[in-house]
Amino acid sequence: MQPDQGRRAQLVEAAAVEFDRDGYATASIAGIARAAGVSQGTLHRWFPTKHALALAVIDEQNARTFHALQSVDPSPLVTLIRASRGVADLLMTDVVVRAGIRISLEHGVLAQQTASFYEQWIAGVVDVFRLAVASGEVRSDVAPEALGATLVPYFTGVQLVSNVRSGRADLLPAVSTMWQVLVHGVAERTHRRRLLRVVEETFIA
Amino acid sequence: MQPDQGRRAQLVEAAAVEFDRDGYATASIAGIARAAGVSQGTLHRWFPTKHALALAVIDEQNARTFHALQSVDPSPLVTLIRASRGVADLLMTDVVVRAGIRISLEHGVLAQQTASFYEQWIAGVVDVFRLAVASGEVRSDVAPEALGATLVPYFTGVQLVSNVRSGRADLLPAVSTMWQVLVHGVAERTHRRRLLRVVEETFIA
Repeated sequence: MQPDQGRRAQLVEAAAVEFDRDGYATASIAGIARAAGVSQGTLHRWFPTKHALALAVIDEQNARTFHALQSVDPSPLVTLIRASRGVADLLMTDVVVRAGIRISLEHGVLAQQTASFYEQWIAGVVDVFRLAVASGEVRSDVAPEALGATLVPYFTGVQLVSNVRSGRADLLPAVSTMWQVLVHGVAERTHRRRLLRVVEETFIA
Repeated sequence: MQPDQGRRAQLVEAAAVEFDRDGYATASIAGIARAAGVSQGTLHRWFPTKHALALAVIDEQNARTFHALQSVDPSPLVTLIRASRGVADLLMTDVVVRAGIRISLEHGVLAQQTASFYEQWIAGVVDVFRLAVASGEVRSDVAPEALGATLVPYFTGVQLVSNVRSGRADLLPAVSTMWQVLVHGVAERTHRRRLLRVVEETFIA
C-alpha cells in the first residue's frame, strides 16, 4: 500500500467511526478531522465535502461486503448461508461496514447510491437463486427474482432490528432463525435436512 | 376534539412532514414552526425540544400502527396478513407513520423509544403466533417467540428496501412475496392453500 493510500484509508476509517456513532446529518467534518488527527485543510484536500467522505465509506463497505459473496460452495443455498454469516461478522466487527449500511439507510442525500447498492446485492443473490432452482435445491414455483428481492430486505431488517434491540448481540441467532424460515419456505423437501444442518453449524457463535 | 388537541395534532403532523422528508438530525424547529404556520414561541410552548416533538410523532405512529393489529380473524395467520396490509397502507398514505418509523430507525437519540416500540410489536406478534401454533395452523417445531422476532424485522426490511428502491411503489407485491415465503416456511401443510389464497386476495393493490 502506498503511503498516500494508507492516509486515505485512515481518513475513511475515521469518518466511518463518526458516521457509525452519529449518523450522516450529525457527523461533522471538524469532528472527523479531529478523530483522524489531521487538520480540516488536509481532510479537505482528500475529500472536499462530507458527501464525498460518505460515498467513500459506502464504496469501501460495498467492496468488503460483496467480498463475502465470493466464496462459492457447490450448493447455491450454502453459498448464501455462508455469505450471510460473513456479512453478519463484518457488521459486528467492521466499523466501515456498519457506518456504510447505517448512512445508506438514512436516505435523502445518498438515495441514489443506496438504491444502486441494493440493486447490486439483489442481482447477485438472484443469480445464486437461479442456480439453486436449476440444481433442484429450491422450489421452482417462486421466481428467483422474487426470492432475491425478498432475501436482501429480510437480512437488512434482521440486522437493523437486532441492532436496535441488542446492539447486534443477538445477530447470529436472529440470522439463523431467518434461514430456518427460508429453508422451510423455499428449499425442496429432499434438501431441507442437509441445509438445516448447515444453518445450525454456520451460526454457532 | 378540543381546540387545543386540534392544535397539538396539527403541530405533530407538521413535524412529521419535516422528519419524513429530512430525518431527525436535519429537521429544524424553525422549519417545523414555519410548516405549521405558527411562531417558534408557540411551538415551544407545546413542545420544548425537537426531541419532545419526535417522541410525540413516534407515540402517534405507535397508536396508528398498533390499531392495525386490532382486527381479529378466527385464523391467527389471517389476522397477521391483514395487519401487515394495514400497516403497508399506512406507510403509503400516512406521513406520521412514515416519519415515526424513519426517525425510529435513525437510532442514537431515540434508541430507547425505538427498542421499546419493537419489543411491543414483537410481543403482539408472538401472541398471535402462539394462537396459530395452538390452533394447528403453524408448525410447532419453531418457537412462537422466534417467529415473532423474525416476522417484525422481515416486514421492517421489506418496507425499508421498498422505500429505497421504489419510494414504496412495489410495497404491496414485496409484502405479498414475504407472506408466500412465510406461509410455506411456517404454516402446516393442510392450511397452506387457504392461506396463500388469502395472501393473494389481500395484496391485490
